[in-house]
Parts: sequence; C-alpha cells; structure tokens
Amino acid sequence: MIRVAVNGYGTIGKRVAEAVMLQPDMQLIGVGKTSPNAEAIVAQRKGIRIFAPEDSVKKFEESGIRVEGSIQDMVKLADVVVDATPNGVGAEYKPLYESQGKRAVFQGGEKPNVAEVSFSSLCNYDEGIGRKYIRVVSCNTTALLRTICTLSKVGKVEKVRATIIRRAADPKEIKRGPINSLVLDPASVPSHHAKDVNTVLKDLNIITTAVIAPTTLMHVHSLNVTFKEKVSKEDVINVLLNTPRLVMVSSKSKVSSTAEVIETARDLGRARNDIKEVVVFEDSVYVNGNELILTYAVHQESIVVPENVDAIRAMHGIPAEESISTTNKTLGIIGGYLI
Amino acid sequence: MIRVAVNGYGTIGKRVAEAVMLQPDMQLIGVGKTSPNAEAIVAQRKGIRIFAPEDSVKKFEESGIRVEGSIQDMVKLADVVVDATPNGVGAEYKPLYESQGKRAVFQGGEKPNVAEVSFSSLCNYDEGIGRKYIRVVSCNTTALLRTICTLSKVGKVEKVRATIIRRAADPKEIKRGPINSLVLDPASVPSHHAKDVNTVLKDLNIITTAVIAPTTLMHVHSLNVTFKEKVSKEDVINVLLNTPRLVMVSSKSKVSSTAEVIETARDLGRARNDIKEVVVFEDSVYVNGNELILTYAVHQESIVVPENVDAIRAMHGIPAEESISTTNKTLGIIGGYLI
Repeated sequence: MIRVAVNGYGTIGKRVAEAVMLQPDMQLIGVGKTSPNAEAIVAQRKGIRIFAPEDSVKKFEESGIRVEGSIQDMVKLADVVVDATPNGVGAEYKPLYESQGKRAVFQGGEKPNVAEVSFSSLCNYDEGIGRKYIRVVSCNTTALLRTICTLSKVGKVEKVRATIIRRAADPKEIKRGPINSLVLDPASVPSHHAKDVNTVLKDLNIITTAVIAPTTLMHVHSLNVTFKEKVSKEDVINVLLNTPRLVMVSSKSKVSSTAEVIETARDLGRARNDIKEVVVFEDSVYVNGNELILTYAVHQESIVVPENVDAIRAMHGIPAEESISTTNKTLGIIGGYLI
Repeated sequence: MIRVAVNGYGTIGKRVAEAVMLQPDMQLIGVGKTSPNAEAIVAQRKGIRIFAPEDSVKKFEESGIRVEGSIQDMVKLADVVVDATPNGVGAEYKPLYESQGKRAVFQGGEKPNVAEVSFSSLCNYDEGIGRKYIRVVSCNTTALLRTICTLSKVGKVEKVRATIIRRAADPKEIKRGPINSLVLDPASVPSHHAKDVNTVLKDLNIITTAVIAPTTLMHVHSLNVTFKEKVSKEDVINVLLNTPRLVMVSSKSKVSSTAEVIETARDLGRARNDIKEVVVFEDSVYVNGNELILTYAVHQESIVVPENVDAIRAMHGIPAEESISTTNKTLGIIGGYLI
C-alpha cells in the first residue's frame, strides 16, 4: 500500500484524491486544504480526512469541519505527496516534503526544475521510475504529448505546429475572464506549451500559439503534424482508436463541439462529467502525404488525473504497462469511440 | 457619378451604404429593407431613402417610416446594386438585377457562381475591371487574401495553413450561439475558407480549419505560411507596415486581445468601433527560415466594406490604385501602426 497525501484540494486535487481512493495499491492519507469552502464540506461527507495550515484551523472549526492536523502532520503520515496547490505554491512546499524525506508529485503550474523529470505516461513513464520528484505537465501539454507520442507509432514525427484555443476559466471560477474577447496567450510565439512539450520530448521541433476564448468546458487544439515520411489516414485512425486515453468521436455521432462532448459525458454517467481522455474529432483527421491535420478537445479539469496516479507508481518502481492498465481500469478510462 | 443602390440593410448593407455616401464619385440612390426595425429608423434620420418589397410597405408606414418605392423601383434608378441581403438571397435577387440590365456586387455568403469573379482588392482588382457581376468574398476570406497577397511581396508563398477562430455572433445578434462551447465549423478539413481563397488565388496550396468561439467582437486567425525561400522577419514587418488595409498593434501598446483592439477603435473615435483593416499583432510575427507564423484579428462587421466600394469602381473601369487610394482616404483606412 502506497500512502498518498494530496496537498491542495481544488480542481485537480479533489480529482486526484478520489482517483487515489480507487486504486487497489494506494491509500489516501488525507488532503491539505486552506479554506473551509463547499469542496471541504463535501470532502468531509465523503470521509476524506482534512488537514489544514495551523493558522486556518479555527476557520475550519467555525465551519463545522473537523481538521485532523497540520499539513506537516499529513506529510509525515504519507509515502508520497501529490502537490496540487496553486501555481508556484508547490515550489514553496517542496522544502517541507524534502525535509521529511517524502516523494512528491508536482503539477504543470510549477517550473520544470521543481522536479527531476517532467512526466507524461504515454511518452516517458520509464524516466519516472524510482524518482523522488516528478512534475506532471499541464493539461494542454498532457494532451499534446499523449497525442504526439501516440502518433509517433505511425511514423517518425518531423515537426508539430499547433494552435491552442484555451478555455478562459473552469466552470466553478467566477472571477476569471474574458467573457467577450479572444486573448492571445501570449501574443509572442511560441506559447509556453511548446517549451513544456520539450521538457519531455527534448528534440521535437514544435511551435505552439495559444488564444484564450470565453468558454469554460474544454480546450481545443488544432494540430498540424509533419511526418518524416508519407503516412496513411487509415493507420492514423487505427492508432488513435487503439490507444486508451485517447477517444474518438465519430462522424456518425454528429458531435462537433465541446458542449456536445460534455453533454455526452453527462449522459454516460461520468462523474462530474469528466473526460480524462483526449477527445479526437474523427471528421477532422486529414492526411495528405506526410502531413496530418487533426482537431481534438481537452477536458482541462481532469485530463492530468491518470498521469498523477501513474507518476506515483513510477516513483515506486511499478512498470508502465501495469500502472497504466490499472489506472485506466479503476478510473473508467477507455480507448476507441467515446460512443 | 455612379448611382449605387444597396439592397439589404443589415450589418454589411448599412456600412456599405454609408461608405458609398462618402465617395466623391458615387451617389447613394437608396437602400432596400424588408423590416422596419431600429436600423431603418436610424437610416431615415440620416436622410437615406428606403425602398421596400411591396408587401412590406404597410409595416413600414405603421412604424412611421416613409418608403420611397419598391425594390424594383430602386434598382431601376441605379447603375449598380450592392446586394447585401442574407446568404443565398442575393442569388434570388439576381434575375431582377439582370432583367433591368444593372451591374451587381454580391457578398461572400453567395456561391461563387453568382458572379463572374470573386474579388479581393489587394489580390485581383484587375480581374474586376469592366465586369457586370462581382462577388466580394466573406470577412474571413477577405482577411486571408489581404494578408497572403501582401506577404507575397516578401517572397513566393508555397503553402498556407490557418486556424480560424470565428466569433459566434455579431454584437447585435441575440439569437445566435454558442454561449459556452467551442464548435468545430465544420469538423471536416478544410473549412470552406480555403476553398473560398482558391476562388481568387486559384493555385494556392491552402488548408484552413475553423472553430467558433463564444465572442462577438472579432475573428482571430493563426496563420502559418511557408515561403519557397527564406524570408527575413524585418521584410515581413516592413511589408505589413507599408500596406494600408493592414495595421499592426505594437508590442509597446500591450494590446493582445480583440477586446483591447475594439476599445482602441472606440477611443480613436472610429464610427461604430469599426476597424476595416486586418489587425496584425506585432509580437506574434515569428520567422524561421522559410516559415512565418502570425496572428491577426478581423472585424467581421466592417472588413469587407472597402472591397465593396472598390468592386463598384472596378466594374466601371477605374484603375486599382485610384480606387483603393480614394476608398482608403474617404473611409479613414490606414496602414502602419494602429496606435
């Protein structure tokens, strides 16, 4: 049993904590939370043990939420901490994890040098084996890497150009914008996503541009891949259909928007309408010679959850195939057509 | 004096009508309108003569709007009709224009075969010379063509790949969506924009993908251009800065979104906050070898207005340079930096 603590219980933290609870080889020690909001109340109802910074304990008690101890106490009880604190805060917590000799998984909002390796299950799982500190790349980078490494099975990838249309805020966020603008993020090229892909695929020729759009549901990537040699559309479709963590929405389903993808997830009974898979629109797959164009959607709230679970196992020396297969099975992650 | 009638008085029609009124060599005969809405009331206040289908006259009179005659009457008085009726309706009106021997300018919502030539001032003005029927391509295609033909001055363009992030609705439209989704438009590749560019640049290797985003202000294009040979960033910037109908927003201005571009237009006193120029984000210009990446914004409501005015002159044999320069001067269209 790997004892896991999750520090930070927001969008990512709560999902990782619940995913950990579903793993046969892991035990959730508890979660670190700084404010006693609705998420904390629900966590308590679910029987999740809550730890809080010492100066926040009073606030929790006033809200009727039981605090099991400090963040330090929680870290002490764990073998590994998944740090899901806000961007940059993970680096501030690292000395605590270090001082107690604990392994830690960080999120993509941290700088790459917070960890020994940046991690993507389908690309470089083995580089995570035995590590003490792993950084799971961000949602957009996770989607890019999953897709690119999957496509690499069709042929050697020469270069990738991508336009990333980012969702502006998560559904729960009420103070972020824009609500009526397209915002270059940033105007300069490349966006940080290409650099982040290069933390895992170090030699890949990739340039990304990113634009924020006023929507909350999913990101969309328009990808242009040049292979070293000619590829066939059939091979591309086959490899995409046969790699769990990527799903396809077929032409027949007539699903061609993020709203319809999310509605399908709701209808399928997916918890919180999460779709942890990259969602490729089959109709968008265009192949001509060595050029491939495709469009896919990325559920920003949940796509990195399986990679966090895998990172914990990689640290503990469990082989890639075993971890990925267990994670997929326990979290209901599929391949093939979404419907 | 070229006598111009504008049939259809919505987003494009009202702008073209006002642009025609500003031309020293044109006279606005009147506009064709089917419903007596706010736009009709304002048109009347501006002294624009309104013509309406015979079965709509009563509705106009009930709204206190004077109707000068039928659409047929209006067409009779004109040398040329600018058809700005909804998509596909222009083709239905064409027999009327034909039967009265009138020239006509159609919009990009019509099929290319509605006219003898699809038109973009900076690409193929001369092909419009002396024509009876010209189709001005749509807003997105106009922006693509202006940009590509301008970039062709830097070097021979080998291929273009573009991701078009479309605004979902115009500011005045209250029944269009989406309000919280990214919608592939369509999922299949290429989107119609590439085909439409090929109605003007027949041999260009271009593929476009389009996604609709929930915003009303402007479209954004992420463009990837491969030249036959190496180009320099300096040459690209220079040609973009020296071609009126394209403007640049500089790094210094810190403008990196459609909202800030529109706010600048408002602050500059541009009527209706229109920006008839393609708005290139200087920071987004990336050149490496023979590859160019850049991002620009497109004001969908007004970008085709100057091309409509030029199309009228091309039909009447007026040379490109003379028309473009007059149109730019009268409509306040600039080159260089927006601010």
